[in-house]
Amino acid sequence: MSQTDKTNKFTIAVYVDNKFGVLTRVTSMFTRRGFNIDSLTVGETENPAYSRITLTMSGDGYARDQMLNQLRKLINVRKVQVLEPEKSVARELLLLKLANDPSVRQDVLMAVNVYRASIIDYSPDALSIEVTGAPSKIDAFIELMRPFGIIEMCRTGLVAINRGSSTIFKDGQ
Amino acid sequence: MSQTDKTNKFTIAVYVDNKFGVLTRVTSMFTRRGFNIDSLTVGETENPAYSRITLTMSGDGYARDQMLNQLRKLINVRKVQVLEPEKSVARELLLLKLANDPSVRQDVLMAVNVYRASIIDYSPDALSIEVTGAPSKIDAFIELMRPFGIIEMCRTGLVAINRGSSTIFKDGQ
Repeated sequence: MSQTDKTNKFTIAVYVDNKFGVLTRVTSMFTRRGFNIDSLTVGETENPAYSRITLTMSGDGYARDQMLNQLRKLINVRKVQVLEPEKSVARELLLLKLANDPSVRQDVLMAVNVYRASIIDYSPDALSIEVTGAPSKIDAFIELMRPFGIIEMCRTGLVAINRGSSTIFKDGQ
Repeated sequence: MSQTDKTNKFTIAVYVDNKFGVLTRVTSMFTRRGFNIDSLTVGETENPAYSRITLTMSGDGYARDQMLNQLRKLINVRKVQVLEPEKSVARELLLLKLANDPSVRQDVLMAVNVYRASIIDYSPDALSIEVTGAPSKIDAFIELMRPFGIIEMCRTGLVAINRGSSTIFKDGQ
């Protein structure tokens, strides 16, 4: 089995100038090259002049390297880094709304406790839950809640940083 | 003071077909019209055929309505909704890395406890903290940590859902 042909999920952090149109430049580069972005977040950083985009994509090693090279060529892109799963911590946030059904309420509360989730809204008709964790934990929580009738849900997509003192600017590729 | 001229921050949820190029279509529409997206997240929903984009923008009521109309005209956009702050719950996730400095460690740990944050990585040189909350809480936590020397940070940007049983498909605009 060839390792190089394997399709994997990659997490890429992109440090960009906080300027008009940068996000579109990044996403349209993926579209133009025919690659799909699985999740994307963009938010402020420690410096107001910069934003940080975290995106996940699926592909083989060749596709990944092609995207990295193209990203590094873009205007207003300062730094690009692949976050390796074994060297980084990744988190995601989920908001999930369920019908407030008395017959399953105890089961829902038990799961909320075990997952260290929080109920952030509660009404006679519905309850909303917040849970944070690695994507695999979020996936497992969604599967656990599915039989209880998910009305609505909303995931942030992943953010990740390197373990230890390594940052996107130090030890970056 | 005219209310209509006031610049506000708006949160918009956009329910889209999980199809190639939709994200670029959304972000480039903003770029084309000259509006900046402050934060954006895109993730899976309760139905694998759809993704949900949550974005925040600044502008007056006119700018907001213009964007809503344009978004609703886009291909593969199924539903667009403004999330009003008083009728919704909004959350954001922050990962933040600090130098592991023994002289401030107790102050950092105290803040982590008070904010119900978690230390998700700890090494002799650095420690990484995860905290979740409304954007104002995240902002306050960052200000609290700033004197301790932020090495790196990463925010997901906001996700939000309506309170009660209202969803993007029910009671949506």
